[in-house]
Amino acid sequence: MRVLILGGDGYLGWPTAMSMAAKGHDVTVMDNYLRRNIAQETCSEALTPNPNLIDRAKIFEAATGKKIDVVIGDAADYRVLSALFARTKPECVVHYAEQPSAPYSMKGFDEARLTLNNNLNVTFNVIFAVIEQAPDCHIVKLGTMGEYGTPNIDIEEGWLDVTHNGRSQKFLYPRQAGSLYHTTKVLDTDLLWFYVRTYGIRVTDLMQGPVYGLSTPEADMDERLVPNFHYDDIFGTVVNRFVTQAVAGIPLTVYGKGGQTRGYLNLLDTLQCVELAMTSPVKKGELRILNQIVEQFTVNQIAEKVKTVGDRMGLNVAVKSIENPRKEMEEHYYNAKCSGLIELGLKPHPMTDDVVAGMLENVLRYKDRIDPSKVMPRVKWS
Amino acid sequence: MRVLILGGDGYLGWPTAMSMAAKGHDVTVMDNYLRRNIAQETCSEALTPNPNLIDRAKIFEAATGKKIDVVIGDAADYRVLSALFARTKPECVVHYAEQPSAPYSMKGFDEARLTLNNNLNVTFNVIFAVIEQAPDCHIVKLGTMGEYGTPNIDIEEGWLDVTHNGRSQKFLYPRQAGSLYHTTKVLDTDLLWFYVRTYGIRVTDLMQGPVYGLSTPEADMDERLVPNFHYDDIFGTVVNRFVTQAVAGIPLTVYGKGGQTRGYLNLLDTLQCVELAMTSPVKKGELRILNQIVEQFTVNQIAEKVKTVGDRMGLNVAVKSIENPRKEMEEHYYNAKCSGLIELGLKPHPMTDDVVAGMLENVLRYKDRIDPSKVMPRVKWS
Repeated sequence: MRVLILGGDGYLGWPTAMSMAAKGHDVTVMDNYLRRNIAQETCSEALTPNPNLIDRAKIFEAATGKKIDVVIGDAADYRVLSALFARTKPECVVHYAEQPSAPYSMKGFDEARLTLNNNLNVTFNVIFAVIEQAPDCHIVKLGTMGEYGTPNIDIEEGWLDVTHNGRSQKFLYPRQAGSLYHTTKVLDTDLLWFYVRTYGIRVTDLMQGPVYGLSTPEADMDERLVPNFHYDDIFGTVVNRFVTQAVAGIPLTVYGKGGQTRGYLNLLDTLQCVELAMTSPVKKGELRILNQIVEQFTVNQIAEKVKTVGDRMGLNVAVKSIENPRKEMEEHYYNAKCSGLIELGLKPHPMTDDVVAGMLENVLRYKDRIDPSKVMPRVKWS
Repeated sequence: MRVLILGGDGYLGWPTAMSMAAKGHDVTVMDNYLRRNIAQETCSEALTPNPNLIDRAKIFEAATGKKIDVVIGDAADYRVLSALFARTKPECVVHYAEQPSAPYSMKGFDEARLTLNNNLNVTFNVIFAVIEQAPDCHIVKLGTMGEYGTPNIDIEEGWLDVTHNGRSQKFLYPRQAGSLYHTTKVLDTDLLWFYVRTYGIRVTDLMQGPVYGLSTPEADMDERLVPNFHYDDIFGTVVNRFVTQAVAGIPLTVYGKGGQTRGYLNLLDTLQCVELAMTSPVKKGELRILNQIVEQFTVNQIAEKVKTVGDRMGLNVAVKSIENPRKEMEEHYYNAKCSGLIELGLKPHPMTDDVVAGMLENVLRYKDRIDPSKVMPRVKWS
């Protein structure tokens, strides 16, 4: 299948590109290094070595014989994106090309404005590039479970049937996100749904939970192919951050009470989910929404898991609650449905002790590169 | 009260500015003439003479002795808006500064992108200008009833209590709009609600229905003060369009079956509602949503009203159904609550035969200026 991956340099974009190329798909990736530039600007570089995208594609080709076509360019520039669609005529576009950090989006005016404009404009451009250049192309969009926030009722997969005063209506599940970054994904969903029902484009919107891990079959071939793994407060997701703290001998920093519950998934499951969405496209005029998570944990449960496995490995892990820099509920109801991807064929990799041990061993290789000053939260909500 | 009106040149912005100045408020208006420029570009100029905003303020001052401070500038430029907030320190900002045409927003890529970026960025800038320059300032934002679309259940005022699997949650009422323009207002609401709950700003979001009329106490003093009244397919709202068609002897063009139901209000009621919202501000951290409509009609009912009154005046009015250029339901359930503004003190002006006759007489003065070629829809949805 001809697939275009936008944001192909990212923590998820790059392993997705490799995985799809390895499976024989015809892969083009585009990225403008926005995340790399923000990482540098905020002193939040990845733990792992990360050659530039063009060099990585060469290393990957040398290792596998498979080619990944790389374009360095800005998807927020419509001329660039439209020309790329015209040239590659993708059957599927995987849209990861967003500023992905919640704390960065809450830092100040400039960071918030960049997040809003980049994320909305890329989504908007993707919609129009599809309409104008590849009307049958299936958009696989990475949303986030964070769009839903933490409602007091069950989280359904994208939609909610409401009965009110004796009448019924199916709505997009009401969304209420916890950061501007997450809110831009709510706006993305609104925008996609409008153009799906008006222009008949085809979209799968994946509501993804926080991802963890750095091992994939392709990444394991050469350490220069390992996805950029962040442990800092800006880009580091909680599991990756805790694993790195355990390796560095720093207490795992739980924000507030630690009862915050989310749905999580292994990087390997992200790769599966995106490919399952791609290879079972929806029909025109359909917006399919899938909750891309595998299991739910509180932050305290994750800390406990990392501590248990880390202690067994002799890491002597401490856990410490610190003041929560975010505005969020620290104890709440959370029950999110996630059967859609299982029905499509997802075989989940749960967060077993072995998986945590594997991550700890992997990160131990980079122990000398850990900078403890990058771990503590530097951005407060308001 | 020190009030800043953004979009103060508009069909609603200008009469609001005059009304508030006449009542003794300290009024500053800003506008970048975006709507005038689009009207010129699309050959959709207003029916009524409209001197530029600075000249209008002079005419108004000569007639009333009241001053309106005029700034020509772009609220989407944060430096400009922030400096204006710093200088005027408004107690209330009335935010009309959006590209307001649904058909224009559906014309093509450039028009859609302009609508998305202008509307979102102005709202975003208003939020930050308040946070940084006037944290106690109450934002009175013009939303639209069109945000709700036409759901099969009752439309509540902004919020919906949902019970699901035995548990309950109050959500923003789920929104599903019928044009990109209306969708940008959905995104505005999402954005405002995020910053209300995170930064504790104070916002009233007015879900306004289509407005009709051109007479206000101040506009009636001098015809050069009459708000820009549009009858074209781009900016003309349905009642104003029908009245003009009746005067011009063109059949009233009903889109499709004409069963489309909306809530309407007289321009005089917009002025009341905005002032009521302003003079009863919400507390910090509160988002108040009010449905700003007075009565519901189908398009057929409006055509019938204009025909009845027009015929009585000897205008011999015809009504003709034409192909609907929009994607919308032409027959549907519609029941929108609108008690909040009444509770604040609104005294509605219903669309009586006298009101319709008054509009017809008013528009008859400009009969020679009507260009029938501007009336038919030029933009199709997709």
